[in-house]
Amino acid sequence: MKVTLLHIGDELLIGQIVNTNAAWMARALETIGARVVETIVAGDDRAHIQDALRRGLSMADAVLMTGGLGPTRDDLTKHALAEFFGVDMVFDEACWQHLQRLFERFGKEWNDAHRAQCLVPANARLLPNRMGTAPGMWFAHDGKVVVSLPGVPFEMQHLMEAYVLPGLKEHFRPEPRLHRTICTVGEAESVLAQKLASFEAELPPEVSLAYLPSLFEVRLRLTAKGADEERLRAMIDEQTEKLVAILGSCVFSTEGEAIEEALGRILRKHKLTIATAESCTGGHIAHKITSVPGASDYFLGGVVSYANEVKMNVLGVRAEDLHQHGAVSEPVARQMAEGARQVIGADLAVATTGIAGPTGGTPEKPVGTVWIAASLGDQTVARKYRFGKMRGRNIEMAAVAALAMAWELVVGRAG
Amino acid sequence: MKVTLLHIGDELLIGQIVNTNAAWMARALETIGARVVETIVAGDDRAHIQDALRRGLSMADAVLMTGGLGPTRDDLTKHALAEFFGVDMVFDEACWQHLQRLFERFGKEWNDAHRAQCLVPANARLLPNRMGTAPGMWFAHDGKVVVSLPGVPFEMQHLMEAYVLPGLKEHFRPEPRLHRTICTVGEAESVLAQKLASFEAELPPEVSLAYLPSLFEVRLRLTAKGADEERLRAMIDEQTEKLVAILGSCVFSTEGEAIEEALGRILRKHKLTIATAESCTGGHIAHKITSVPGASDYFLGGVVSYANEVKMNVLGVRAEDLHQHGAVSEPVARQMAEGARQVIGADLAVATTGIAGPTGGTPEKPVGTVWIAASLGDQTVARKYRFGKMRGRNIEMAAVAALAMAWELVVGRAG
Repeated sequence: MKVTLLHIGDELLIGQIVNTNAAWMARALETIGARVVETIVAGDDRAHIQDALRRGLSMADAVLMTGGLGPTRDDLTKHALAEFFGVDMVFDEACWQHLQRLFERFGKEWNDAHRAQCLVPANARLLPNRMGTAPGMWFAHDGKVVVSLPGVPFEMQHLMEAYVLPGLKEHFRPEPRLHRTICTVGEAESVLAQKLASFEAELPPEVSLAYLPSLFEVRLRLTAKGADEERLRAMIDEQTEKLVAILGSCVFSTEGEAIEEALGRILRKHKLTIATAESCTGGHIAHKITSVPGASDYFLGGVVSYANEVKMNVLGVRAEDLHQHGAVSEPVARQMAEGARQVIGADLAVATTGIAGPTGGTPEKPVGTVWIAASLGDQTVARKYRFGKMRGRNIEMAAVAALAMAWELVVGRAG
Repeated sequence: MKVTLLHIGDELLIGQIVNTNAAWMARALETIGARVVETIVAGDDRAHIQDALRRGLSMADAVLMTGGLGPTRDDLTKHALAEFFGVDMVFDEACWQHLQRLFERFGKEWNDAHRAQCLVPANARLLPNRMGTAPGMWFAHDGKVVVSLPGVPFEMQHLMEAYVLPGLKEHFRPEPRLHRTICTVGEAESVLAQKLASFEAELPPEVSLAYLPSLFEVRLRLTAKGADEERLRAMIDEQTEKLVAILGSCVFSTEGEAIEEALGRILRKHKLTIATAESCTGGHIAHKITSVPGASDYFLGGVVSYANEVKMNVLGVRAEDLHQHGAVSEPVARQMAEGARQVIGADLAVATTGIAGPTGGTPEKPVGTVWIAASLGDQTVARKYRFGKMRGRNIEMAAVAALAMAWELVVGRAG
């Protein structure tokens, strides 16, 4: 089945916010076997919305709209839709009761703008919004479907998962489609592609492989399409096993996890605690680790040692090594990791020291040079990386590389 | 003048990447007085590209396209354009020489795919790409303009700045437009709007005000339109001054800076150093500070004290206060800030301790409760915040609030 996405909002058109809804919705639709054929972003203008909706319907089986439903907005979308379908606006009592309960719970006052939110096109089936005040709306139209959702990402996501995806599946019965995302770190896409050349050539016709590269990580997505879901599941399990056997230790997850999630999972499993010692990554590793809910089960804390004095005084890095080898060096990275374990009292620590840029590079140590170390038990490993020229990318890549090194060390020791 | 954006690429449609080019281009176009009327994302399909281009031209004076120009791609866009304009493809010798120089410089081998990149529609004016191998293309068509750019963000941005914006300005001579972005922190959009009601009402007709809210920050953008640039500049200066006088200390920048940039600027100016002590923000404050190039001039380091043992052993928080008041409390926040100053040796420190969620809340201290403290000289201030239920948002808001508190303290003391 084909879908057109139609996003309404001047704030999108003028670039005040980036349209992240489109990518989220496309990925969600893909899981039920639906394909986005075009995405349109239109401004807060009734005639333009109707024209874009007409075009959207001419290209696809369904048009999913977001935006233009809030209490302070003009409720433009609803009126544009009523006019488009040639129906009146009606007051929905159930919607009003839901809103009043929401306001009671939060002890807030409602006003006329909120009452107006319960005025909806007569042909709308309302999708109750537990995350906000504007309901979603589902319209059946000449065998096609039009859905209107609020533009706030978590409200849209809630309504997509609760009503829209199941509803589209029910209505259009697209072919089943299963996915498995295998996450790798440290190998370039081209290297993986070479290793997987014959695996790819031998894939059964129902299964396909896609490469989703990002900074320092490559995700591999296996997709199986066909009529028999049970059989597809077995096929995808079998191919995942093959793929992991070929790629070995660069695979850290077969469930689409981020590296910090996979690391957290094995730390919890092995009852190990972790600490960080960060120079060039400036707290980004600790931030990634603590972005995972429940990280306090295994993350004790860290030191951001930007200045050399902090490396010496807090982490116990030896002054003579700083002097002799420089802050960006193997001995300093090792001593930072070992010092962090000691001062924080953790089983495991990772450390980074490098030149994030844009300045501070030298001919021997150009911008992007980073030493990373990890220490666990009686083992400390260290590796030198050479990333790029852009500060933000260097920080991100060094943080991912450090998390991957910690993961390797735990897996290597603990199986 | 009106512009349609047309982004080509299956990777956008399937949600593999988020379309950040659209927002960047819209903001860039706005600076020359051009307005985006619609954004279309279409897949790698020749007929679809041509249809979208036709629609784009029917709505606007210019269509700016991105994507579908790379060496490994099908070069679909170029062929679709040649067919659309009814012209042949021709080999561009200057483009080929440029490519050969690039390959020589990087010591790489060229292949037939690279030679094919120099095959362009006969009516194209080429825009040399210093950042990559695919040139941009400019087409004049019935008084309108079509531009095709590579989809890689920094290549697109380079070509926009070097050729497309100046070219559109030259061709369409849109009315001059000046902007000034005033950044505030800690006040809700509705509160600011109330304070600015009469300011807004009294704005001269050439000047308009827009609210750009994000988490815990609100940016206010003044825009002046008219024929006389000199006069507009004076008007916008005058209105900025008025606005700052009304809003007072919640304004941290009149130049569109992020709070970490503004903080860095005044720390550098007053030759002060800063340290962080983070519990619930988990390193995110340090990460924000160090995302600014040159942060090592004023940022010495920080401690992420997730576990209570780290709060006590590294930062010197008293065990009896942790026991009596709990980790999320005013005395602990204060001692963390003071402890960080001491252990890191910095002039100033900020500290956070709170419940990021989703678990860990209690009736007295629900998820989203955060104590933030800042310490400078003989002064330590602390404030309790109540953010929301979502972990990621709580971490982000607490980090911004902490940076704002540091900024206030420096401005308050140092003027």
